Amino acid sequence: MRYKLTLEYDGTNTLGWQRQLDGPSIQEYMEKVLEILSGTHSEVAAAGRTDAGVHAIAQVAHIDFDTNMETWKIREAFNANLRLLEAPVSVLDVEAVSDDFHARFSARGRGYIYKILNRRSPSVLQANRVWWVPVELDIEAMRKGAEYLLGNHDFSSFRAAACQAKSPIKTLDKLDIEKIGDEIIFTVEAKSFLHHQVRNMVGTLKMVGDGKLKPDDIKTILEAKDRSKAGATAPACGLYLNKVVY
Amino acid sequence: MRYKLTLEYDGTNTLGWQRQLDGPSIQEYMEKVLEILSGTHSEVAAAGRTDAGVHAIAQVAHIDFDTNMETWKIREAFNANLRLLEAPVSVLDVEAVSDDFHARFSARGRGYIYKILNRRSPSVLQANRVWWVPVELDIEAMRKGAEYLLGNHDFSSFRAAACQAKSPIKTLDKLDIEKIGDEIIFTVEAKSFLHHQVRNMVGTLKMVGDGKLKPDDIKTILEAKDRSKAGATAPACGLYLNKVVY
Repeated sequence: MRYKLTLEYDGTNTLGWQRQLDGPSIQEYMEKVLEILSGTHSEVAAAGRTDAGVHAIAQVAHIDFDTNMETWKIREAFNANLRLLEAPVSVLDVEAVSDDFHARFSARGRGYIYKILNRRSPSVLQANRVWWVPVELDIEAMRKGAEYLLGNHDFSSFRAAACQAKSPIKTLDKLDIEKIGDEIIFTVEAKSFLHHQVRNMVGTLKMVGDGKLKPDDIKTILEAKDRSKAGATAPACGLYLNKVVY
Repeated sequence: MRYKLTLEYDGTNTLGWQRQLDGPSIQEYMEKVLEILSGTHSEVAAAGRTDAGVHAIAQVAHIDFDTNMETWKIREAFNANLRLLEAPVSVLDVEAVSDDFHARFSARGRGYIYKILNRRSPSVLQANRVWWVPVELDIEAMRKGAEYLLGNHDFSSFRAAACQAKSPIKTLDKLDIEKIGDEIIFTVEAKSFLHHQVRNMVGTLKMVGDGKLKPDDIKTILEAKDRSKAGATAPACGLYLNKVVY
């Protein structure tokens, strides 16, 4: 039987979603618990392979698990075992799905949010949950720059060197920027993203916000199709995988 | 010269505001940094002596510090040294005040917020920032119960045994309860509070929320003036000192 799991996790002290030999990963924690519950090792696949330090508000994974347990019991069994392992993961929801459902390949859209804390003083309550930017950012300028990124483009300027996607062409459906108190929240949606695309877009828009770039420069950078023209990658700690649409 | 400081802190790994011999406190971190900057030890007084594990969004303290530094420089100097000490404190604001200003005795009002996370799954992103209550709570019932607590009362039923206040009579100006997503936020205001008063009120209202008590029972409990009649003290990790009014 196949199940769809919705997961929250704190990426801070992990190497990200994907299983690695040199440190803890969310996938490894999930596979350990699945093995405890089912007695056999099998892979847990996720919609997005988030990087080290990146969080999830609602990552989606699927598992194959032969059990008579009801879905709410599967959720509680996972959470009890994750807590015993002190894993920074919580299972929010479990749903029975058909055998052809695949967390990654069935996904029709992904949404991320990115949080900047824009104030003079560092935050202790939000440590590892936001990118702290002490210089005041111009929201309107960043919004103007962001408009150039919407739609179908070659995003090579915002693509990590290690990116394994076949094509650098993606369609960005949403890039909203709102200010709530001292926080600037970027809400970003697309069918899929290139590696580091969100963090590279945020890192470059931040340079528009602090005046190092003009909004129009985003157009020039995008058209250059050259990673070296864009800004630095924004830190992982501000990024959250927020939703996956099927 | 006297300065008023506004502080954010994460109370998780501290014994609270007040200096203690057996572990770290926010006051000790602040006094250490003041000594580094001024060369002499002097006391840092705060509006509220928060308990171990309790956070501050905006605690207020005052210091006496002879310096030519501008206020923004004092803030930056504190924050730089607090970070070197890995102290879970951030100075949000520094303001020059008259010599008769006292963080505690000049305060005319205090506001706290208390956060419950009300959902089936534990939270990893909000660990130590909320009280996780997996049973669904009835907000309307809690609001009805809360109404009995507003105004001038003898709050003995909600007072910790260790409380040093001269009188158990206090005036509760505000106790609002709102639901935002999975979070239930209590906003509480008064001139001052008894020791554990907010956490004891929240712990008792939670029992109204889960049906163990009826809203009217809050009236009976209040009138009993007996701590043993009320509910358990809500955990420290959900409580935040939110504002101090002068």
